[in-house]
Amino acid sequence: MSIKEQVMKMKAVSPKMAALTTEQRNKALECMMAALEANKEEILAANKVDMDKATADNIASAVLKRLKFDEHKLQDVIAGIKELIKLPDPLNKKLMARELDENLKLYRVSCPIGVIGVIFEARPDALVQISSLCLKSGNCAILKGGSETFNTNKALFNVIYKSIVEAGVPEGSFMLAESRSEISELLQCNGYVDLLIPRGSNQFVQYIMNNTKIPVMGHADGICHIYVDKYADVDKAVKIIIDAKTQYVAVCNAVETLLVHKDIAGKLMPKLNEAFKEKSVTLKGTKDIQNIVDCEEANDEDFATEYLDLIISAKTVNDIDEAINHINKYGSHHTDSIVTENDEATEHFMQLVDSAGVYCNCSTRFADGFRYGFGAEVGVSTVKLHARGPVGLDGLVTYKYRLYGDGHIVADYAEGRKQFHFKDIN
Amino acid sequence: MSIKEQVMKMKAVSPKMAALTTEQRNKALECMMAALEANKEEILAANKVDMDKATADNIASAVLKRLKFDEHKLQDVIAGIKELIKLPDPLNKKLMARELDENLKLYRVSCPIGVIGVIFEARPDALVQISSLCLKSGNCAILKGGSETFNTNKALFNVIYKSIVEAGVPEGSFMLAESRSEISELLQCNGYVDLLIPRGSNQFVQYIMNNTKIPVMGHADGICHIYVDKYADVDKAVKIIIDAKTQYVAVCNAVETLLVHKDIAGKLMPKLNEAFKEKSVTLKGTKDIQNIVDCEEANDEDFATEYLDLIISAKTVNDIDEAINHINKYGSHHTDSIVTENDEATEHFMQLVDSAGVYCNCSTRFADGFRYGFGAEVGVSTVKLHARGPVGLDGLVTYKYRLYGDGHIVADYAEGRKQFHFKDIN
Repeated sequence: MSIKEQVMKMKAVSPKMAALTTEQRNKALECMMAALEANKEEILAANKVDMDKATADNIASAVLKRLKFDEHKLQDVIAGIKELIKLPDPLNKKLMARELDENLKLYRVSCPIGVIGVIFEARPDALVQISSLCLKSGNCAILKGGSETFNTNKALFNVIYKSIVEAGVPEGSFMLAESRSEISELLQCNGYVDLLIPRGSNQFVQYIMNNTKIPVMGHADGICHIYVDKYADVDKAVKIIIDAKTQYVAVCNAVETLLVHKDIAGKLMPKLNEAFKEKSVTLKGTKDIQNIVDCEEANDEDFATEYLDLIISAKTVNDIDEAINHINKYGSHHTDSIVTENDEATEHFMQLVDSAGVYCNCSTRFADGFRYGFGAEVGVSTVKLHARGPVGLDGLVTYKYRLYGDGHIVADYAEGRKQFHFKDIN
Repeated sequence: MSIKEQVMKMKAVSPKMAALTTEQRNKALECMMAALEANKEEILAANKVDMDKATADNIASAVLKRLKFDEHKLQDVIAGIKELIKLPDPLNKKLMARELDENLKLYRVSCPIGVIGVIFEARPDALVQISSLCLKSGNCAILKGGSETFNTNKALFNVIYKSIVEAGVPEGSFMLAESRSEISELLQCNGYVDLLIPRGSNQFVQYIMNNTKIPVMGHADGICHIYVDKYADVDKAVKIIIDAKTQYVAVCNAVETLLVHKDIAGKLMPKLNEAFKEKSVTLKGTKDIQNIVDCEEANDEDFATEYLDLIISAKTVNDIDEAINHINKYGSHHTDSIVTENDEATEHFMQLVDSAGVYCNCSTRFADGFRYGFGAEVGVSTVKLHARGPVGLDGLVTYKYRLYGDGHIVADYAEGRKQFHFKDIN
């Protein structure tokens, strides 16, 4: 069967998947946990094949670390599923209940999105997380992982799929896409796939966004800013900037550009540059910055660059509005932070910066589903519709309107024989 | 200035538009009302020019009726703005409030989407409604109306724009696109336009959806179904079907296909066919239907057709699941209704039919923002993300996360020095 045929079949199965009860979905998650534990030898052996190949291919050690799926990571994903089972069911929540007229009741009820295609980086734990999130939220899923973990993905998927089908999840509700060529087939499946969630490099996500008619949730760039206001506490600023730049450098919520109020630059920059040197951060500054500290020169291109590295660009601004305009123009609407002790400046910044996350006196690295207390994260969205920022379980649901009547017709209302009374009910 | 230049300027203005207070936006709506009243001579005169041209062009009288903008319609739109002012502000609502740790507080707060492009049919009242909805929700808007009402649109827009700018709405936050060629320019403005809402014919909306990277909210088809279950009350069914087909025939929520349980077809169809004849509805049925009543033959193509006319297709089904599968396959996920006295059948249908509206014992014609009590409607969405079904004011907002800290950094949590405590707050 072609990908399209499989996806069409999955679409037909999706209402049955959506109709599983809370108990059925949680039971399937329990079976998934047990199966992972029971089949760990097979899974770890498959990962050894991937790891051996990666080592032979001379893959960088940082990447190898992500590819590795050992006993420790297995226990982590199992613990993750355990937590997920405890989370409240995102489905069948009454989001609105209204009596339109006598015996005519309208409910807005949460339901799964349907069929979700997730294309994720070479991290075997991601496969387990995504499968369990989709199952918990009643969605069917097409999973495509990185080719570097081909064998691990296959072993994990087989174990998971078998266990949940045995637990009563409809056949065909999950599938693994194995080859890269299947991505382009998947991108053509509009009308059958309801949502695509691509994770990975900037260019890759941009490619997906530009080559499909299926709605895409995610983010390409993560150009995050910190603005150090005139009224900032300099020590706080240094601490926050160092964390946001160096705590984990290769992630979308790391800071890439620093905007410094001209009145505080002289006090901040020397201290900050010391801290940068200690952490091996390369500073690239505009002329104004170079006048204060010795650093490389930053140009316009720097301000549009997501370094994902120990590099940071910096410029001075004349006032808070210049900072806000810079962020709205060059930023990727991901997460931007102001450091200030002035409440008015805080509110002005938070109101006018058009980003998924607007922060005050804290590191941009907090932009993450786990740190927001969502329990689990699908990804971070910089699109404005549906879900924005870190996306938890509730980003995988939509709603439908249920209207219960007793022979009600519109003509009665249009011709004035009856009138709506709109009462909120339970 | 080209459309793109104007839109880029609008994008830069949009955060200021978003920052207007409830009072400022409501005051601007009041000024809009007053200006429409004060300038009515000019507006009605412009409409006369459009009407004269349409009459000379021999436009159908049903269309003429929509183009006409007289004293009565003016009072209607003014009354609509008055109601809108009374509606609660959709902005700055705390959708979530959580203390992540001491002095680290996260809020999810509703905010405008930003820049919205609305392409609407030739109805001058639509221009006023859309402008007022966008203003109430703090969005900037590019408005493109039908060319048949060119002069009326221009007069209305000038009056509205002048009045709201005088009331403090930022310059450049609204614009009127006048020529059809500007639509294709608009479709290229991804990155600056956050959402497109096209209204109009199936083909037109489909064209928009297929030719832009900007997210689109709306619906192309409206192929709505009524399934008459084995346990239906036949008289109720006839009444509901006649309303759904004939109460207003040229709309997306009119019923196009009838699915009849085989055990009730013999009782239902003769009665129904009598009613159809009385209302001049042409019935097209499958062989099974033709065996019961005299009618034209329906083929597969009929079941994929939105007639928007006094025509209805019909087929018998062996059971409720056949009906559900037919709806999920041929339907447009708009609105579908079951007629039955059996609660189990109702719940089964509502759970498994994958449509924005799933109804029981009532007409599909209820799918409408006014009838849902939303006070105002932007349109009906059959996409699954963001807003589904009739879309009111809250379909024009998104949210941002605001995080307030006091020097908080992620390293403290990653390295175990601090722990999140996740407490819901007010």
